[in-house]
Amino acid sequence: MEIQVVEKILQANDLLAGEVREILGANGVASFNIMGTPGSGKTSIIEQTFSRLRDEFGVAVIEGDIATSLDAERLSRLGLQVVQVNTGGECHLDAGMVKTALPKLDLSAVDLLLIENVGNLVCPAEFDIGESKKILITSTPEGDDKCQKYPLMFRLADAVVVNKVDLMPYVEFNRTNCLLSLSNLNPQAPVFEVSCTTGEGLDEWAGWVRTQLGKRKRKS
Amino acid sequence: MEIQVVEKILQANDLLAGEVREILGANGVASFNIMGTPGSGKTSIIEQTFSRLRDEFGVAVIEGDIATSLDAERLSRLGLQVVQVNTGGECHLDAGMVKTALPKLDLSAVDLLLIENVGNLVCPAEFDIGESKKILITSTPEGDDKCQKYPLMFRLADAVVVNKVDLMPYVEFNRTNCLLSLSNLNPQAPVFEVSCTTGEGLDEWAGWVRTQLGKRKRKS
Repeated sequence: MEIQVVEKILQANDLLAGEVREILGANGVASFNIMGTPGSGKTSIIEQTFSRLRDEFGVAVIEGDIATSLDAERLSRLGLQVVQVNTGGECHLDAGMVKTALPKLDLSAVDLLLIENVGNLVCPAEFDIGESKKILITSTPEGDDKCQKYPLMFRLADAVVVNKVDLMPYVEFNRTNCLLSLSNLNPQAPVFEVSCTTGEGLDEWAGWVRTQLGKRKRKS
Repeated sequence: MEIQVVEKILQANDLLAGEVREILGANGVASFNIMGTPGSGKTSIIEQTFSRLRDEFGVAVIEGDIATSLDAERLSRLGLQVVQVNTGGECHLDAGMVKTALPKLDLSAVDLLLIENVGNLVCPAEFDIGESKKILITSTPEGDDKCQKYPLMFRLADAVVVNKVDLMPYVEFNRTNCLLSLSNLNPQAPVFEVSCTTGEGLDEWAGWVRTQLGKRKRKS
């Protein structure tokens, strides 16, 4: 009986994810589901992506947090369109939350929607939120074994960003182990080694995002 | 209907947590539920706690992970009694998993049982696993705003360990903000600022653990 209920919840979510996908598709909006552990640097990656693509594309953000609007305030100061979603305790975003947030955005001015999920390396992987791509942000202080210990999200990722490479001299992080485990688990996903402090690797990352957006022309 | 099922699951968990508490109590075992985000340093704190208390107390560990036995292997090399629990995808330990692990330990030789939960700053807070104390490990690279963004676990903690203070010069971490938010949210919990790399603060932490164990005499 419990399993039946869980299946029903996931089915309901998948229906809503389909609706989100339809709305975004009709508006020519590509969307990234940005996932990673608390403090991996999801908001910083969003800032850096925006600053590199703002002249070419319309970028908007949905900020998912259990509580507070700290990240949305931080992003809105950059002049981004941002909607805050507070999950009220829930450990992940679901498609219904994203669908509710969409009318608060002017999608006619958006080419790329970055959806920052709740900081959690487990549960968000299980919920389709209607995104075009799943992006996993991990960071060197977390250690090089995270993709072995939390495999599902790493396996589903369309791209992996290894953030905070500037901290590598100060933390225990075996780069070879990390890259090897990633390529064993998910050989398709490109890996970007970046630092939001020094800027290292971020142009390559932004270049990949650009290729995902294809021939879109800036709407606004 | 979904809510009813969730309540039933939590009720079933609470019953099992009561049984775990009874078994541990009958054997004179204190138990800490060690929670925190992936890579916050839960395993390192366990290592450091063990090395400081091993001559005074019998220490054992239950290692909770979604996948792999990397941490259990690391700890068993120290000569600790360790049981690995793989949750098989679940984002938290529950009392049933802990109860199943207990017969694999020789509790007659254990004064302190350290239970390392799955790396997750959200879900483990919702499940009583029969522990005597909840310990939250956070770390400076995660940022100083984590207790505002993920309040439940910080609120429930009996003690908070701020790990990786040696990285403070290299990361954005406002110590005053962190300590102020912690004391606003949970004024009772003592806070230990530590580094498993330099050893800073770990004797104070071990001293607090010692006071929690009270007049227990080393069993084995």
